[in-house]
Amino acid sequence: MTDAPVSPVRAVDVIRKKRDQLELSREEITALVEGYTSGEIPDYQVAAWLMATVIRGLTRAETAALTDAMLHSGEVLDLSEFAASKVDKHSTGGVGDKTSLVLAPVAAAGGLVVPMISGRGLGHTGGTLDKLESIPGFNVNLSVADFRRALHASGCCMIGQTAEIAPADRKLYALRDVTATVESPYLICASIMSKKLAEGIDALVLDVKTGSGAFMKKEADAVFLAELMVETGERMGKKMVALITDMNQPLGRYVGNSLEVVEVLDVLRGQGPDDLRELCLELAGWMFHLGGIASSVEQGKSTAAQLIKSGKALERFRQMVELQGGDARVIDDPGRLPRAQRTLEVKAQSSGYVASIACEAVGTACVILGGGREKKEDSVDPAVGIILHKKVGDRVSAGESLCIVHYNSESRAQRARSLLENSFTVAAAPPAQTNPLVHRVIQPSGEEH
Amino acid sequence: MTDAPVSPVRAVDVIRKKRDQLELSREEITALVEGYTSGEIPDYQVAAWLMATVIRGLTRAETAALTDAMLHSGEVLDLSEFAASKVDKHSTGGVGDKTSLVLAPVAAAGGLVVPMISGRGLGHTGGTLDKLESIPGFNVNLSVADFRRALHASGCCMIGQTAEIAPADRKLYALRDVTATVESPYLICASIMSKKLAEGIDALVLDVKTGSGAFMKKEADAVFLAELMVETGERMGKKMVALITDMNQPLGRYVGNSLEVVEVLDVLRGQGPDDLRELCLELAGWMFHLGGIASSVEQGKSTAAQLIKSGKALERFRQMVELQGGDARVIDDPGRLPRAQRTLEVKAQSSGYVASIACEAVGTACVILGGGREKKEDSVDPAVGIILHKKVGDRVSAGESLCIVHYNSESRAQRARSLLENSFTVAAAPPAQTNPLVHRVIQPSGEEH
Repeated sequence: MTDAPVSPVRAVDVIRKKRDQLELSREEITALVEGYTSGEIPDYQVAAWLMATVIRGLTRAETAALTDAMLHSGEVLDLSEFAASKVDKHSTGGVGDKTSLVLAPVAAAGGLVVPMISGRGLGHTGGTLDKLESIPGFNVNLSVADFRRALHASGCCMIGQTAEIAPADRKLYALRDVTATVESPYLICASIMSKKLAEGIDALVLDVKTGSGAFMKKEADAVFLAELMVETGERMGKKMVALITDMNQPLGRYVGNSLEVVEVLDVLRGQGPDDLRELCLELAGWMFHLGGIASSVEQGKSTAAQLIKSGKALERFRQMVELQGGDARVIDDPGRLPRAQRTLEVKAQSSGYVASIACEAVGTACVILGGGREKKEDSVDPAVGIILHKKVGDRVSAGESLCIVHYNSESRAQRARSLLENSFTVAAAPPAQTNPLVHRVIQPSGEEH
Repeated sequence: MTDAPVSPVRAVDVIRKKRDQLELSREEITALVEGYTSGEIPDYQVAAWLMATVIRGLTRAETAALTDAMLHSGEVLDLSEFAASKVDKHSTGGVGDKTSLVLAPVAAAGGLVVPMISGRGLGHTGGTLDKLESIPGFNVNLSVADFRRALHASGCCMIGQTAEIAPADRKLYALRDVTATVESPYLICASIMSKKLAEGIDALVLDVKTGSGAFMKKEADAVFLAELMVETGERMGKKMVALITDMNQPLGRYVGNSLEVVEVLDVLRGQGPDDLRELCLELAGWMFHLGGIASSVEQGKSTAAQLIKSGKALERFRQMVELQGGDARVIDDPGRLPRAQRTLEVKAQSSGYVASIACEAVGTACVILGGGREKKEDSVDPAVGIILHKKVGDRVSAGESLCIVHYNSESRAQRARSLLENSFTVAAAPPAQTNPLVHRVIQPSGEEH
């Protein structure tokens, strides 16, 4: 018998409720997140709760409460000093997905403020920070004060996670990683949205990838996550949209950190491959529309196209690179970017049409070359990567180059080559249909575009 | 990229498999249990695995592998030096369930060896060790060497968990307790069976309680657990039976530690209440039958009855008490047992028949009096308890005593009284039917008795 006072929320009771498929209150979720962040609730209780959550799921109200609790575990930026709309874009990750580097300067050049906090690559997908860091001197580790100064100076700034932003997410993610509790749309939503909403933004454009190179191979899973994130952001008073976009082949032609910066510069010069340029315009169109600069997405797209054509977007990119300590000479002379020592070609075995490209395998080949991470602790070689010469639907002759591999290690190159040789499927006839770039648009309240 | 050698079984992969409803191999389960026991696998990974297991369940093969791994996490007694069959009985816990104290001396007097390792009470159910310790001087903390010596001397010995037996279970149970992962038939089975099989027994009689005072309120849940335990024991080469017995009202009339010893002595003298005496004979009959002493359960029952009638069972009890340091004078003079300072009566408000007794509430009333534990750390008052004057089906007049409360604290007595007043339902007519004492008998391969 004990007469000791009982804390209003006991972790074990919260775990049991979730296990038994009951809905948790906002108070219970907040107590769990706060207790975990402060160290009062131990890893093992949160691990059990995470597994119950992965299997049982969360309601929309629980998801919003979890996001909110994680968001408020740290600093939430107040950017109300900026008169302009603060808008960001977030992608769930893909192969060759370098749109963030285009969008931040385009949106800033158009009058938006883009306070972009990004992540590193993990597994077969690349990361924005790794790409930026391939620019010599570019510093992604700015303090919040320097971040704010850079936003005032150029309207956009791209940095990595700081210790102040959503510390609960950092602690939870490390635990999820070792307890097989990463793969849950509810936990993914709370993780992404807590960090993005901490940026002090008014609107968020989500690029949710689907297909063989995405985390969500099935479109239904991508749509589910997109709806969850859109509704969660909307509950918190943000303007939201999610584009379900194709990741059945790499986006653009360049995969690898410095190689992708080269392709970004191409797009900012009004060149570059169609799919990448088109997706950048689409996403920028939505950023301008949600940010109140354009009355429609179409108008936003033409604003973006104008900003590229006029060179204003490229100049904004140059300004951002300079403000973040990078060598801006790479913009006019991409040869200054890190370059691999050797290259090899992967050639077609037969003639016909590229029917498909195993997109995840291309990403994995880049990791094998040293351009990505298998584990968080791994370091990245900025120079290596793959340039695709053929994409889905392209005609190809036997012996023609499918792609070129940029490498620094012979043994790694051979492993990557054999993976890439098996990644291209060549068929006699062209594919009956190609996937659209944007599969669906998810707006608040399930409205579709 | 890492070239480090990879351990054959990674905890995170085992967790993921169980999360994804795949069957784990014996090797994977063994690696998890061994890694946890040795401290190589941390609490948080096992907590996630436990939650996945509670929700997803285990196959029979997985349950057996888990039991086996937990069993072999510590010492497994080798009692092959005894020519006689080694037989034990285990109950899943109830209110007023004191059959172990009767069965050990009866079975030993009949020629079996009973190496009984028991537990303490927790929550509304009592524990064998607490009852034994109400006998002044009785020592349940024997070393394995002393346990063996006592078995040689009297054929039965009743002790508590030792550090050597199934350490994995102790560590897992502590973790389950704080992660809401106790309530799983698979984990309960592995916990019980790993400890019981470590006793070096040949046969095990399980008393699986069902009803309002049992952990498993529903008979189907009790049957499920019983079948799981019987099959697990059978897979390990043990003779097994499980009796599904009634716990819709307390067993016998005495609830509380020293009070229950008084009732045990009554039964060993051939007296005591019908239900308790009958269940003891039934369980003893099965112990003799499985142990090869009796060719049938019926013959085993009459052997048990003879051993009681002749006084041999009581003498064996006396011998056990003496060997374990207890004051054997209590056997002839139960007044020497701890006695509460005061008593109060709970009286019937109306006349009629007792229709039901809220069995768990009676157990909880005993805990409130100080006779049980809410938390493992709580100490127990051996003297307090409840003597029932009326049981289900009994006729009662308004103002007549339903039960008498033995207490040492006035405030606790008042709380217990109000609980007990609401525990008895009195109806105008006698209940249409009373629950049988033994609901079902579960034998290997689903065979029913």
